[in-house]
Amino acid sequence: MKIFGDLNSGNCLKVKWVSEAVGLRFTWVDVDIMKGESRTPEFLAMNPAGQVPTVLFDDGRVLAQSNAIIRYFARGSRFIPADDFGAAMMDEWLFWEQYSHEPYIAGCRFQLVYLRRRPEELDPERVRRGYAALDRMDEHLRKTRFLLGESVSLADVALLAYTRLAPEGGFDLSRHAALCRWIGEAEQDLGVASQTA
Amino acid sequence: MKIFGDLNSGNCLKVKWVSEAVGLRFTWVDVDIMKGESRTPEFLAMNPAGQVPTVLFDDGRVLAQSNAIIRYFARGSRFIPADDFGAAMMDEWLFWEQYSHEPYIAGCRFQLVYLRRRPEELDPERVRRGYAALDRMDEHLRKTRFLLGESVSLADVALLAYTRLAPEGGFDLSRHAALCRWIGEAEQDLGVASQTA
Repeated sequence: MKIFGDLNSGNCLKVKWVSEAVGLRFTWVDVDIMKGESRTPEFLAMNPAGQVPTVLFDDGRVLAQSNAIIRYFARGSRFIPADDFGAAMMDEWLFWEQYSHEPYIAGCRFQLVYLRRRPEELDPERVRRGYAALDRMDEHLRKTRFLLGESVSLADVALLAYTRLAPEGGFDLSRHAALCRWIGEAEQDLGVASQTA
Repeated sequence: MKIFGDLNSGNCLKVKWVSEAVGLRFTWVDVDIMKGESRTPEFLAMNPAGQVPTVLFDDGRVLAQSNAIIRYFARGSRFIPADDFGAAMMDEWLFWEQYSHEPYIAGCRFQLVYLRRRPEELDPERVRRGYAALDRMDEHLRKTRFLLGESVSLADVALLAYTRLAPEGGFDLSRHAALCRWIGEAEQDLGVASQTA
């Protein structure tokens, strides 16, 4: 199986982390989005959405969308609660991540890191919504070790991906003590090198 | 069980359709987002994200995010493929809907219907991305009856919700014959009254 991705993309890292954690064998194929490599006719024939990560299985099947991929790869593992309602709460975080977190946190980081904008050029509404997402997580993580309780789930994987990179998007996490504690513990659990080390 | 929602919201309608289709008993509680009813202290205590739809179960448990809710409600039903990879492809559409479709299609509709902006005031980039989503669906639906094949799944439920309302967001579907054919067939399958009748 081949995983097409960009190691600078949190969405792609989610897939790499889970693949490694559950022991899947894969070949990583680097795709440079900024050079348009996810928009070539060959890539669009594989994934018409023109997005990474994209997984190409040996039999030709294709799967895209980071959270759909990790949900498929992690089935039956410690990363998905065994009870239906626990899995539903995990899904709630996964969808919230893509709708209310990623567009703002990863969006600001994209502006600063990829487009080389300056922090004062960021859309204030996008920054405000980013902080709203970080505040919500911090508030929740004051009460619970990981997002669903005492052990790591895909909710943590999905939200760790860009939350740990939020400072690159101009976000100051110094007021978010619970969030910073969680970032360290989730990175350690997944064997991910700390950004601040 | 209580479902808190707004009948003008496609995200809320998804939950209503699936609840009815699988025969769940529920009380619908109307929430007017424009009046701030999803931002009251009482509502935020139930769902800190301040979003509808939100489900309150009789034992006090809470579940949010439309696609997480319908995935939970529809488990074991005809709406979720029985094989793991089929379910993963369904998830791919669900995440794509929230990330690459809803923000543009529902976003433009929100501007026109709720904020009473004029079509020429819409962000051209948002309109462009909306059409890109509609084009992708139309291309796919030329080859297959429903999004995952011959029968309706949650992928159709999730994408029907705002695609059928796209004209209210200023989108012209006259070039999208396969998409319009699919809207009619999915509405009929779900017993949803047509918007154009």
